[in-house]
Formats: sequence, C-alpha cells, structure tokens
Amino acid sequence: MQPLPGFRDFLPDDCAFRNVIFSRWREVCRSYGFVEWDGPILEPTELYKKKSGPEIVAQLFNFTDKGDREVAMRPELTPSLARVVAAHEREFRKPLKWFSTPQCFRYEKQQRGRLREHYQLNCDIIGDASPAADVELVALLIDLLRAFGLTANDVVVRLSDREFWTDLLRTQNAPEDRWSELLQMIDKSEREPREKTAERLGPLAAPVFEVLDGSGRSDKLDQLVSDLARRGLAEFVKVDLSIVRGLAYYTGVVFEAFDRAGKLRAIAGGGRYDNLIHQLSDGAVSFPAVGFAMGDVVLGELIRETPASFARLAKLVSVQSAIDIYLVVAKEARRPDALRDLQQLRDAGLRVDYPLTPMKVGRQFQTAEAIGARVTLLYGDEWPAVKMKTLTNREEVLIPNEELLGRVKRLLS
Amino acid sequence: MQPLPGFRDFLPDDCAFRNVIFSRWREVCRSYGFVEWDGPILEPTELYKKKSGPEIVAQLFNFTDKGDREVAMRPELTPSLARVVAAHEREFRKPLKWFSTPQCFRYEKQQRGRLREHYQLNCDIIGDASPAADVELVALLIDLLRAFGLTANDVVVRLSDREFWTDLLRTQNAPEDRWSELLQMIDKSEREPREKTAERLGPLAAPVFEVLDGSGRSDKLDQLVSDLARRGLAEFVKVDLSIVRGLAYYTGVVFEAFDRAGKLRAIAGGGRYDNLIHQLSDGAVSFPAVGFAMGDVVLGELIRETPASFARLAKLVSVQSAIDIYLVVAKEARRPDALRDLQQLRDAGLRVDYPLTPMKVGRQFQTAEAIGARVTLLYGDEWPAVKMKTLTNREEVLIPNEELLGRVKRLLS
Repeated sequence: MQPLPGFRDFLPDDCAFRNVIFSRWREVCRSYGFVEWDGPILEPTELYKKKSGPEIVAQLFNFTDKGDREVAMRPELTPSLARVVAAHEREFRKPLKWFSTPQCFRYEKQQRGRLREHYQLNCDIIGDASPAADVELVALLIDLLRAFGLTANDVVVRLSDREFWTDLLRTQNAPEDRWSELLQMIDKSEREPREKTAERLGPLAAPVFEVLDGSGRSDKLDQLVSDLARRGLAEFVKVDLSIVRGLAYYTGVVFEAFDRAGKLRAIAGGGRYDNLIHQLSDGAVSFPAVGFAMGDVVLGELIRETPASFARLAKLVSVQSAIDIYLVVAKEARRPDALRDLQQLRDAGLRVDYPLTPMKVGRQFQTAEAIGARVTLLYGDEWPAVKMKTLTNREEVLIPNEELLGRVKRLLS
Repeated sequence: MQPLPGFRDFLPDDCAFRNVIFSRWREVCRSYGFVEWDGPILEPTELYKKKSGPEIVAQLFNFTDKGDREVAMRPELTPSLARVVAAHEREFRKPLKWFSTPQCFRYEKQQRGRLREHYQLNCDIIGDASPAADVELVALLIDLLRAFGLTANDVVVRLSDREFWTDLLRTQNAPEDRWSELLQMIDKSEREPREKTAERLGPLAAPVFEVLDGSGRSDKLDQLVSDLARRGLAEFVKVDLSIVRGLAYYTGVVFEAFDRAGKLRAIAGGGRYDNLIHQLSDGAVSFPAVGFAMGDVVLGELIRETPASFARLAKLVSVQSAIDIYLVVAKEARRPDALRDLQQLRDAGLRVDYPLTPMKVGRQFQTAEAIGARVTLLYGDEWPAVKMKTLTNREEVLIPNEELLGRVKRLLS
C-alpha cells in the first residue's frame, strides 16, 4: 500500500501544491526570457561518470537494460544539457537562457529535506562569460523566492567566488594538482572542528582561516552586490567567502540560498562553470555558462513553515482546484436539460460538475460546497428558468434558460 | 550526443508543444471536475506482475535497486492508482474523478507512434457503476480531442461492450475458464485471416463472425450513443462490437479513439473495470471504475497531420514562448536606467529580455524580432523618456519614464 521508500504519492492536494510550485517557477523564468527544455529521465550511466567520477554510481538508480546498455535514472540535468547543447547549439542564438523542471533520482539515505526523488528547477545561461549573466541569474533566483512570498527576512543568498580561492591558493604557492582537494577541505571546514581542518591544511590554515573569519574582500562580489542593489534586490544577498561548494567544476561566482533561520538544507545552489560543457562534450563545443538548481522538497518545507508564504500558495492551490458551477438536479425530469447546459457551459471553458446519479437535493448542495463550487444552478420546478445561487453570499436569482450562458459567464469573469 | 533509443530530448520548441498538450489536457479535465494526482515513476515490479502476469516483465525497464528491491519504471499508472485508492479512499468523497499525466516506459521495439517512453493522460471515475459515468468519461475523451481542434471528420471513438461478448459466450455454453482466451482470439481476429480465427474458435466461429459482420445489437451502447447525442457529441462515436480490447480486466463498456483515416495507432483507449481495484488491492477495497488513457505521441502525430489543428496548437505555442518587451540599450550610459525598469516590468508580471553586454542597436532589434517580442523600449538620447516601438506595426511613441509601467501594462493587456 506504500510507495517505495523515498518516493512520493501525490494525492490531489499534494499534486496541486506541486503544480503551483511548477507554475510559479515557469512564470518567473519566462518573465526573465528563459525558455523551457527537457531531457530524458534515463541516460547512459557513462554520462554521469564523466562529470562526477565513478564514485557517483553508488548513488544512482542504475541498471543494465534489456539491450545490454548501462543506464541510469538521471541524478541531475547538467550532463544532459551539455549533450543537447553540443548536438544542437547551431540552431540557437547565444546566449541560451534555458530552464527545466526535471524529476531527479538519487539512491541515498533519506533525511529531512532529502528523498530519493525530487523535482529540480534548473536555470542556465550558456554562451555568455560576462558578470552581467551572473547578476541576471542571481536576480532570477531571488525573484523565484519572492514569487512564493518569501522575503529577505525568510531567505538569504550567500555569494562567493571560486576564483577568489584559486587566487589565494596560487599566491600561497599551493600546487595546482592539489587545488581540488584543498577546496573540498575548505568547503568541509564549516562542518568539522578547526583543529582537524588546520591539520589537513598545514601552512595554508592561517590564511584560509583569516578569510573564513571575514577578512576576505572581493571586488567582483562587491560589484555583483551593487548591480543587484540597482534592481532593489541587495537585501536578499550576503557576500560569504566561506561558501566554496565542493563540486570541482565551478570556475567563478558560486552561490547558495538558505532559509535565514538556518534550519533547513540549502534551497538552491549554483555558480559559473565555464569549462564543463567543453569537458562533457569531449571538446566538441566550448561555452562559458552559469546556472543553478532549486529543489521542490526544501522549498516546499520553507513555504509550509512561513505563514504568509503558505497562505499565498494555499490560495493559488484553491484557485487551481475550484469548480465554477455545480448543477443541482432537483427533478430527475430536468436531467436532460441540465446535461445539455452542462456541455454548453464546459464548452465555454467553465468548470462544471453534477451528480452522475439521482441524489437528494440537500446532499447535492453539500457536494457543491465540499468541492468549492462558486455557484449552483438548480434544475427543478422553475424550469424553463434555472435558479442560480452564489454559495459565498447565498444570493439566489432566477435566470431564463436562454440567457443562462451569458449571465453565468459575466458573473464568473 | 544522442539520447537512448526510444527516448526524446525536448528542445524548446518540442517542449512548448508538449506543454501546450499538457495544458489543454488539464484545462479540459478540470472543466469536467476532475482533479489531478500522480504516483511515483518507480514502483515494485510485483505491482505490475499482479495486474498483467509475469509476461509483462519482458517489456519493463526493471532492475534490482541498491536495497535489493525488485523495481520497475512504471509502464502504466493503473496499478499505482489502485494502490493509492486502497490506501486513502476514506479521505475522499465518491465518486473520485481523477486524472494524471504520467510519463510511462516500456522496453519494446520502436515503431511509428511507439517509443520507449511517452506521456499518458489517465482519466478515471472510481466508485460509480452507473452508465452515466461511462457517458461522462466518453464525453471527456471527445472533448479532449475537440480541444485540439480535431473534428468528427478527423477522429472517431469506437464503442463496444465486453458484457455483450461474455453474454454471447455464456449463451453459446463456452466454459467460463476459457472466456479470457476466447476474447483475446476475437480481439486478434481483425489482424489475421478468418480461417485461422475460425479454426481456433471452432463451433463459436459462426456466431462470432455474425457479430463482427455487423449483426450485433446492444441496448446499452444505443443508450450511450443517445446520451452523447444529447450533449451534441454523437457524430464522434460509432458502435463497433469488433472492439474487444485484449486486456482481461474489462467488465463493461470499452472504447478506442482512432484517426478517421485509419493511418495511425489508437489515440486513446479504455473502458469499465469493475473488479480490478479489488483484485489489485488484494481485496482491501472494492470499487467499480471506468477510465481511459491517451498518449502524447500518436496525438501529436495526428495534430501535426491535421492543418487546422496544427495551426491552432502552433498559435498556443507562440503565445507560451512570446516575450512582451525587449529593452534596447542604445547608449551604455542608460544601461543602469534600463536595468532598474527591467526589474519593475518583470515584477509586474511582464516578460522582458535585454542584451547582457553592449551590442549594436541594429542587432538588438534583430534579437527582439527573433525572440518574438511585442514591443521594444529604447534607452538612448531621448532619456528621461523612452522610445517604445510596437514591432508588428512599427509604430513608435515617446513615453516619459515615470509613466512607463502604466502605459506598457495597458498596451499589452
């Protein structure tokens, strides 16, 4: 009776909640001139190994298909993006501003905010190396949060710069083949005792801790903040050089969105990855890129915990699910008339429900209330007129049948 | 560079086409008072074996997960529906009118109209055994086709009745344990020589062929057609008792939608399955039900081959992708002003794009045309006024900056 561990059933209320999140994601992305694309849910396992190394396989839903192909349910969308861009880039004007809302899968231990599947909004600007693309993308991330009624009191986007750290490692003469490992140590330092990090970093510990303790300055990030300030979005961001992001492929600005209370996992994360498409396409194409991903699970938790945001979303859910009209068949002799009107009303784009089989009038009104109908139309002794009742204020009015469609449409528009 | 065989990449135009299909599906289902739900993409393989027998496994993307569970990517949604209904039925008023748009997977030979994945609209009425539910569901199927501009000249829904056939088998004293096998023979008879079917059916051949040749009459189906006629939908349907549908679980009315030209595979199919939920839930619950499924692949082919339908869909695609405003930065000194307005316009729900980096004015206008912008706003010597150009008619007008938001919103609404 249960779904597999880490997988969700979406009952109608859950599904409506999910759909409202998707709708808001799409509206905001489109307001930024982003267009939607999608890749397959199943890809060759190799595609993910190429990006993340063979260790990734331990976290995949992977298998051998009946044609002896090694395949995996996608853990993320970026490798498919690189594949599709490499195959089709000539068809599109650069920069690409693309978004997608894939469901992604990881075989991991379930924890709060982490299931084995989630939906993940991906937004990427491909083919533009300018800081303006970074600003546009961080602004989009902020507006996506604002779209759910989240304010600067609820969320913060922490900004950092991978180049700041590679510059520091270069200045300190750290050998370049150790950078990736050192960056991961710095990334982990927030989550372990200082002595342990210090031991690992050796002579690098002092300059690194200085930065983590707030002495670091980055002109690039100051500029980013000031560009966001021009859009009125500065209060949503904070320069925080301790954000390193473990992933090896970031090359510039990186950022993560969190709830201000710090109770939840990251809501979203991303950054600039100027070499990854070149690498994933085996050198077929080369494009600078910047992107982020936002999952539906942590976002959903934050919305549910933020009363103003939840109220707003609940209202959108009720609009999505609401029925315009419930037809009350008070006399079975009038059912044929009701069914004829039913078709006309639905053809006009209205949402109309009715009792499939004979039912007491009182129960019909209860049903109308339960499904959130705005008005009832009663087919009974008044025929050829129909009694329309507005359920919010109980007002009743008799409408001659030939005027019905016009009157109802006017009332509900 | 290619997706796996039988899987699709959705480039922006394909994705917009797919999204328009989804939107129309949702709108029509909601106009019928149906609510959306969804199940997981991965389920225990057992769930599908229980419905379809062990043979189904040969057609599944199935595997053993890292927790040693036998799992499969869903080939269809009905087994998940039965599971979810059994687990939650007390939470809902009956009948349930539920729809879903799952992506489903089958490891099969690829053919025209059949990939290894497709999206499949599922509509089900659960908990109502009346003919009225059959009518409501067939009407929904027809209106889903009409929603894509398909007419009775383009499509037909063939209606049949599984009970008609079981009645005939009973009258002919065919042993009940052979019914399922016999029905499959009758179902196959259209696709093989008569002699072969005759040999298999033995003494049943004569009465069966009489029906297939048009002598069969069904009061139930005549009533269904007359109920649809009352809704003005009769021209879309045809009683055709040769439709048997191979699946063992149908118990009453069955139907299939085809293109009139008969060039494509079935667009949709379904029927009444009053015992299946009982069986799939191991007897936990028992509900009469009627439902159908419609795939996106054959429907998409038919739309593309039907000019009026395709034109209608292409228009919806262009509305979905259109940009309202492109900001032309004619003087870089005005960029900060443009960016401030950018945020205001997007906050107002408008779709606005602009050049991330300096670009010749001529190329900016080309970009605006290419992305389908309705108006351009030019930031240059006219500041603090902005020159607005409507791209369809080339009309230009100067707007003082403080009036911009109001003027633009009025123009575009």
